[in-house]
Amino acid sequence: MSLSVRQVLQRVSEGTMSVEDALLHVKEKPFEDLGFAKVDLHRRVRQGAAEVIYGAGKTPEQIVGILEAMRRNGQGPVLITRLSPEAAEAVGRSCALDYHEEPRVGIVGDLPQPDGIGRIIVATGGTSDIPVAEEAALTAEVLGSEVQRLYDVGVAGLHRTLSHLEDIMSASVLIAVAGMEGALASVLGGLAECPVIAVPTSVGYGVSFGGLAALLAMLNSCSSGVTVVNIDNGFGAGYCANRINHMGVKR
Amino acid sequence: MSLSVRQVLQRVSEGTMSVEDALLHVKEKPFEDLGFAKVDLHRRVRQGAAEVIYGAGKTPEQIVGILEAMRRNGQGPVLITRLSPEAAEAVGRSCALDYHEEPRVGIVGDLPQPDGIGRIIVATGGTSDIPVAEEAALTAEVLGSEVQRLYDVGVAGLHRTLSHLEDIMSASVLIAVAGMEGALASVLGGLAECPVIAVPTSVGYGVSFGGLAALLAMLNSCSSGVTVVNIDNGFGAGYCANRINHMGVKR
Amino acid sequence: MSLSVRQVLQRVSEGTMSVEDALLHVKEKPFEDLGFAKVDLHRRVRQGAAEVIYGAGKTPEQIVGILEAMRRNGQGPVLITRLSPEAAEAVGRSCALDYHEEPRVGIVGDLPQPDGIGRIIVATGGTSDIPVAEEAALTAEVLGSEVQRLYDVGVAGLHRTLSHLEDIMSASVLIAVAGMEGALASVLGGLAECPVIAVPTSVGYGVSFGGLAALLAMLNSCSSGVTVVNIDNGFGAGYCANRINHMGVKR
Amino acid sequence: MSLSVRQVLQRVSEGTMSVEDALLHVKEKPFEDLGFAKVDLHRRVRQGAAEVIYGAGKTPEQIVGILEAMRRNGQGPVLITRLSPEAAEAVGRSCALDYHEEPRVGIVGDLPQPDGIGRIIVATGGTSDIPVAEEAALTAEVLGSEVQRLYDVGVAGLHRTLSHLEDIMSASVLIAVAGMEGALASVLGGLAECPVIAVPTSVGYGVSFGGLAALLAMLNSCSSGVTVVNIDNGFGAGYCANRINHMGVKR
Amino acid sequence: MSLSVRQVLQRVSEGTMSVEDALLHVKEKPFEDLGFAKVDLHRRVRQGAAEVIYGAGKTPEQIVGILEAMRRNGQGPVLITRLSPEAAEAVGRSCALDYHEEPRVGIVGDLPQPDGIGRIIVATGGTSDIPVAEEAALTAEVLGSEVQRLYDVGVAGLHRTLSHLEDIMSASVLIAVAGMEGALASVLGGLAECPVIAVPTSVGYGVSFGGLAALLAMLNSCSSGVTVVNIDNGFGAGYCANRINHMGVKR
Amino acid sequence: MSLSVRQVLQRVSEGTMSVEDALLHVKEKPFEDLGFAKVDLHRRVRQGAAEVIYGAGKTPEQIVGILEAMRRNGQGPVLITRLSPEAAEAVGRSCALDYHEEPRVGIVGDLPQPDGIGRIIVATGGTSDIPVAEEAALTAEVLGSEVQRLYDVGVAGLHRTLSHLEDIMSASVLIAVAGMEGALASVLGGLAECPVIAVPTSVGYGVSFGGLAALLAMLNSCSSGVTVVNIDNGFGAGYCANRINHMGVKR
Amino acid sequence: MSLSVRQVLQRVSEGTMSVEDALLHVKEKPFEDLGFAKVDLHRRVRQGAAEVIYGAGKTPEQIVGILEAMRRNGQGPVLITRLSPEAAEAVGRSCALDYHEEPRVGIVGDLPQPDGIGRIIVATGGTSDIPVAEEAALTAEVLGSEVQRLYDVGVAGLHRTLSHLEDIMSASVLIAVAGMEGALASVLGGLAECPVIAVPTSVGYGVSFGGLAALLAMLNSCSSGVTVVNIDNGFGAGYCANRINHMGVKR
Amino acid sequence: MSLSVRQVLQRVSEGTMSVEDALLHVKEKPFEDLGFAKVDLHRRVRQGAAEVIYGAGKTPEQIVGILEAMRRNGQGPVLITRLSPEAAEAVGRSCALDYHEEPRVGIVGDLPQPDGIGRIIVATGGTSDIPVAEEAALTAEVLGSEVQRLYDVGVAGLHRTLSHLEDIMSASVLIAVAGMEGALASVLGGLAECPVIAVPTSVGYGVSFGGLAALLAMLNSCSSGVTVVNIDNGFGAGYCANRINHMGVKR
Repeated sequence: MSLSVRQVLQRVSEGTMSVEDALLHVKEKPFEDLGFAKVDLHRRVRQGAAEVIYGAGKTPEQIVGILEAMRRNGQGPVLITRLSPEAAEAVGRSCALDYHEEPRVGIVGDLPQPDGIGRIIVATGGTSDIPVAEEAALTAEVLGSEVQRLYDVGVAGLHRTLSHLEDIMSASVLIAVAGMEGALASVLGGLAECPVIAVPTSVGYGVSFGGLAALLAMLNSCSSGVTVVNIDNGFGAGYCANRINHMGVKR
Repeated sequence: MSLSVRQVLQRVSEGTMSVEDALLHVKEKPFEDLGFAKVDLHRRVRQGAAEVIYGAGKTPEQIVGILEAMRRNGQGPVLITRLSPEAAEAVGRSCALDYHEEPRVGIVGDLPQPDGIGRIIVATGGTSDIPVAEEAALTAEVLGSEVQRLYDVGVAGLHRTLSHLEDIMSASVLIAVAGMEGALASVLGGLAECPVIAVPTSVGYGVSFGGLAALLAMLNSCSSGVTVVNIDNGFGAGYCANRINHMGVKR
Repeated sequence: MSLSVRQVLQRVSEGTMSVEDALLHVKEKPFEDLGFAKVDLHRRVRQGAAEVIYGAGKTPEQIVGILEAMRRNGQGPVLITRLSPEAAEAVGRSCALDYHEEPRVGIVGDLPQPDGIGRIIVATGGTSDIPVAEEAALTAEVLGSEVQRLYDVGVAGLHRTLSHLEDIMSASVLIAVAGMEGALASVLGGLAECPVIAVPTSVGYGVSFGGLAALLAMLNSCSSGVTVVNIDNGFGAGYCANRINHMGVKR
Repeated sequence: MSLSVRQVLQRVSEGTMSVEDALLHVKEKPFEDLGFAKVDLHRRVRQGAAEVIYGAGKTPEQIVGILEAMRRNGQGPVLITRLSPEAAEAVGRSCALDYHEEPRVGIVGDLPQPDGIGRIIVATGGTSDIPVAEEAALTAEVLGSEVQRLYDVGVAGLHRTLSHLEDIMSASVLIAVAGMEGALASVLGGLAECPVIAVPTSVGYGVSFGGLAALLAMLNSCSSGVTVVNIDNGFGAGYCANRINHMGVKR
Repeated sequence: MSLSVRQVLQRVSEGTMSVEDALLHVKEKPFEDLGFAKVDLHRRVRQGAAEVIYGAGKTPEQIVGILEAMRRNGQGPVLITRLSPEAAEAVGRSCALDYHEEPRVGIVGDLPQPDGIGRIIVATGGTSDIPVAEEAALTAEVLGSEVQRLYDVGVAGLHRTLSHLEDIMSASVLIAVAGMEGALASVLGGLAECPVIAVPTSVGYGVSFGGLAALLAMLNSCSSGVTVVNIDNGFGAGYCANRINHMGVKR
Repeated sequence: MSLSVRQVLQRVSEGTMSVEDALLHVKEKPFEDLGFAKVDLHRRVRQGAAEVIYGAGKTPEQIVGILEAMRRNGQGPVLITRLSPEAAEAVGRSCALDYHEEPRVGIVGDLPQPDGIGRIIVATGGTSDIPVAEEAALTAEVLGSEVQRLYDVGVAGLHRTLSHLEDIMSASVLIAVAGMEGALASVLGGLAECPVIAVPTSVGYGVSFGGLAALLAMLNSCSSGVTVVNIDNGFGAGYCANRINHMGVKR
Repeated sequence: MSLSVRQVLQRVSEGTMSVEDALLHVKEKPFEDLGFAKVDLHRRVRQGAAEVIYGAGKTPEQIVGILEAMRRNGQGPVLITRLSPEAAEAVGRSCALDYHEEPRVGIVGDLPQPDGIGRIIVATGGTSDIPVAEEAALTAEVLGSEVQRLYDVGVAGLHRTLSHLEDIMSASVLIAVAGMEGALASVLGGLAECPVIAVPTSVGYGVSFGGLAALLAMLNSCSSGVTVVNIDNGFGAGYCANRINHMGVKR
Repeated sequence: MSLSVRQVLQRVSEGTMSVEDALLHVKEKPFEDLGFAKVDLHRRVRQGAAEVIYGAGKTPEQIVGILEAMRRNGQGPVLITRLSPEAAEAVGRSCALDYHEEPRVGIVGDLPQPDGIGRIIVATGGTSDIPVAEEAALTAEVLGSEVQRLYDVGVAGLHRTLSHLEDIMSASVLIAVAGMEGALASVLGGLAECPVIAVPTSVGYGVSFGGLAALLAMLNSCSSGVTVVNIDNGFGAGYCANRINHMGVKR
């Protein structure tokens, strides 16, 4: 059923459509069908966020196709994650792309000014966790949050963590990015008063099992305020952190 | 170093103690050492929450001992999770205990009035997930949040979920509690605009592997706003949901 | 024992061979022994399907050898799965090969006209699942079924699925192809009235564990009509779907 | 939105409701909300099957409550799986229950006469697999299929399997129930011309890992016509087998 | 070859036996063969420790039999680990047994006076880890070490750990006993200057997997001085800690 | 096809049946169908062994039924493995049963005299491995082999192993039964000149994972002559060892 | 202790050395220490086999060094397993090497004539299992056994197996090489009267988990005469099969 | 708070700072913040060791940057582990680097003279374990310990181990480096009187699972004095062994 939003609202006012059906219409429609992908053009309205393209497993042509469909529909900044340098080069030829090679993130369009609400801290256990942390930080920044980076503050040198205690205690959301034993999440969770999102990374060897050890540690955290996302999922953490950070705004 | 808070502040004003050291003092102190447990008496101030006792692996005597230490220090309502019926009976003899048998949750003291900020939805995939959901709901309620329960709305009967679409879209936090294939989190994550906390449950058999299948599904969710807690960790989800729900308050 | 089919039947009529032994003979014989492979020349008769060559782990020479043995025995269209581009090129030099690069499928001989019985829907959760879906779709088409493709209809955007509700409800078999959390199978299983075959794909990262998370979710599906094949086994799903689709024909 | 089916159809005829929305209404509605469960009263119409109650994790009171809601709405025979002897006794007090203790299956109402379409074979590798096999067989029988049982025909004594070759080759669906190494599915899959549904069982010890070894073997089957359900999921196999067996009927 | 130690030494002095063979004799001999067990009577001399009986999987009769064989040969204090209360009662009837119920440890004979060399700290993350910690502590004490207990100092309340910083920095060996996410080992390993032995415990639920999560975290510790023993292996940790603590003595 | 052996042979001599078909007949037939089990009455002839009943998952009634079917057909000694004390008592009421409680083995009929060919050594790492070792030893003895038991010779006390070096080097088959780290198999495999069958046991705790650690160690053995059976599968080891031990006889 | 064999024997005759010590000397000595490897020069005498070099993880220089040490000591044919084509080329420059590329096996020296004792059958499930099977076959041939190859006789086409029934029933040892579901071992184990050694291969995809599924199936085999070696361990199977095949010789 | 050590001590003497706070200052400070890394400049004082750079996941530029920060602060010899040949070449251009290619270890600065205290033995099961063993040995040597290497002494040839019995029994610490079944640790643990650190290596194939089998075996060791580090963690073992070896020194 292809109704415009106006039509939907009219029906509701006439009583021929329930509120729930109307909501579903708004959530459902419209999307543009490219054959290989159905581009969701209402998501910004619906979920308060720019569109995101998950670059892995898509050809540069597909990515460009999706970008153009968005542009035709007036979408704002677009975040492309897991974008290989090769694909970035191809995409860069068809539009202005700000590419961050380490976290493999591309941004089309201007970063918004932070809206001044809250501050998200992205902390890492070590130097090798930085690419995942940057994916989280850039994601939150594209979505309008202010981000503070605290890198290489792992628990083997507790003093490095504690020297930032005041920052940690005043943040609105914490993102703890760590591989190996993943203890950073528990330590930050014990210190902070805000929600903590833990991101296990695949940094490590042997029984780190590609990040599984860190994931398990984070899920078992004895600190109560910790939730967890998939291994290396910096994007998911940044996305959630921004949602939480902007909780107060909607009220 | 046993300084009173006044002493700490005085030193800060005199310049003989840094702000960070002072913060650490406030975070650190005081706790009461019962030998088998070190009861944390500042946590309410520090993290904005009543004390919680994790009942599993503690004897009734130990639980009563911790409760009394808290009472001596004027703590408010206390939540006891994973409290067996036997231990509940023993604890109930020494103080007024409101015991919920299915989720094995005990509450000492009065539930606070919801403060009117936001609404947390706790949804389950099936009937068997209810005990875990109740642990989440009661935790959030003890901490002052309003909770709406949507039980048995699993994805095999999508219409059951969709009939609550308006509620889902207006919640401040969603808790998705599901065992088996754990698909509820992805479906709710795709519909909601708020943070979604997924709780895998150990409901199922065979390759549900005691909740592992649901956990993996939730961590792999293609919906971007989903974070995850440990299997059957209703408490952790309720605790985080309340923190998120009250984000706007602090500002 | 090397009896011709005529000899077998004669013995049965004479009472010197039981029906079961005769059946076994027909099932057993003949095959052509190439040393490295024993080519089964009765399978079409026996199981109502063209021969299939599993290309992985075979050299181009072996594949060509098997093709020639089949041709000598008058086999119809042959499906070659998991055929690398290099092997495809080599095979293409010795016979007319229709090669589909993305799903790595080669077809020798003409596709049959769909026989007008039923319709198989192949649906995918995302764009990256398409190669596996194509292996399923092409397999079913080689075997004579009509196939409808519904790609990128994952549960994070439920409206994309629901916009095809009528198609889904009138299909004879559904193939649900999805990686990550694999929830598509449960959602389709709840909507459809026909058998659903779920194909987990290795699409994903971190705890998708190469498709294991999707597999577990599908095996745990709370929708009753779902059965599952191995990760990325598009061929198996297409093969089974065709068998089911043609159930009514034999009667 | 609480429309009667008549209202739905009227709206469609008036053009104020799309076909898809109408379908969704029929699929969605009605269900009776018991608080702890939302009983689906349209499923029979929708999916051509009696309602099934998954008894595990439900109290006898909940099961009786669901049964009564069904009876109020005129449902036919009801299958209750995973029903403990204790719960069976309690349920049996409130209605006439035909209880099968070994497979823990209860049936309320009369078994339908087999409709004469096709024949489902349920085969087991050993004696210990029989309870799971019976769950499959009874499920298919409740749904109207004819079932033939072939028990203890495991591959260590191949002759036991081969002595039933004619039956196997003329069945419409095969259900292969086996624990330990699960080889039965591959052997039957190689012999049969019909779809084979494999059910791994938790029979075994050591590295059978509660049925995991059999599950993996079945998913890896080199026989092309095999799909798999969860460990010990006799119900799911019987349900699917009946759907497949009745494929021809709808046409 | 049944030589007395004197005979062995004589042969060495005569040149008819090499030093290595002699060593092997001393290591090898004698043991008393009880049929179901070969009791090692030289171990004290050889490895500087009292004999230890691993009580699990032995009947009370077997334990008493081994104790008597030792007594016949003049062994000193004997440690019995994993001794059930029932077995303890039976053993207690035949000799004076000091039984510690929580860690299931029995001691026959007097505890030695600590020899004044070094100090072993046994720390736990929580209250539930205490039984395993006590097994470690009692083992080290039976072997002559001084032990300091620091219980319930988990990382969620870092101040509890830091309030013992001086003790931690002056210990000769640290034993870190923790379940759940096992982060205590990394935190202590970063603070301490001495060897740290980490003991994962089976405390936890869900993806603690009976201690596996803690074990993996400890093996992945980013603190360099940490080694690990099996889950719940308090005995092994106490045994090793004593060996290390007494390193300086031999010189 | 129900031919007597005589009929089969006659057909072969007449040329109306191939040798292979005849062999299959002898292997196939006859078995007695008890409904719940198909008792194989030719196995002794076929595989040179008495019939074995795997008692786990069978009711006492089923076991007695199978025993009687065997007796009707003149079978010799029967071995019943995994026979619970309760089932043993029930079986003992219907026939003379020699029951070994620790390994849960029952024997009906007389043990044969060892035939003087070779000697099988059954060795264990510890006392707790003895029940599994006894299952192996009794199995081999029922089948006519001579067995020597070497219990509690684990590698932590190498001298206990080495003191039996001559026996080990002159055995015809070695069975190494060990839990925990399973190193016994490698040590014996390095010393022996005969085939070594390794039996991992579920003895251990923590990361012994119910025998999995020992199994993996044994499969990874750096000693070349080692093959492995399932965890706790004493029967399988004894059965194979006897087959190997009697290799020379057939020639 | 560096005694010649003569010296050892003299001491035994003088009574200054026990038989066991003497045996240990013979087993122990001599080996040549190359620094990176200790070459065992008595193994042929001790274990009745030529020396084997495990080529993986050794440089061509190391392999050549070991070969030369053997040649200096008059060893016979040498088998080199897991020898890469690059290393083979390097080794081939320093001595006459018979290299089999598919199984990556190199042989230095002449293959012995089969000694006429018994016949080992090496069977594979499919074409892709042949390299592992060849490693087994060549190993047994180097050690003096006669080998018959039966390739591509997997259970999906049971007739291919049954057409070799007579061979199977008259073999002295069977080696069943199969990937995927590994059912070949159970089927052969049920047909054969001789010991069966099962070799899982890493052939397969998805939940074959690199051969783990086949391994588990083989360890769970319901056929009693089956033992198992590590995944892809053709060498181990061939080595054991030869030992078993030559059992009768020693007597 | 940026106090010099003198300031810290002055405050302690004045009573304005507790001993614990002072300790924390010394432990905490100073570190140099390079943005991507926080270089710890007090560690030598604090933990008695030279600084170590974990080279994996760091660019040559980052490594050089850290090296220069250390040099500015007067650090002694620096150990760089997991340093690729490419990075080694780059680092070697900016300072004098002693690079060991097999273990991928770089050393900047002079190796200290062994201080004559104790002797660490590093033993390996096979030739392929040598790189990991060298990482352990070099680490201990950089830290001032004397190291003896015993390579290729695996348990399949027990005599190779036993020929070094005297060395083994007089060592101060043993490091057992082994892959495959990891039995070396148990055998050495049974022979030695000193602490044994076991290092599983990823040497092996099939179910060695990249070192997991060896790890599990070592954690399950029946020898009491064994602790374990992560797979291939030669550095960790060498670091711990040195700490233990120097235990006596501090007293």
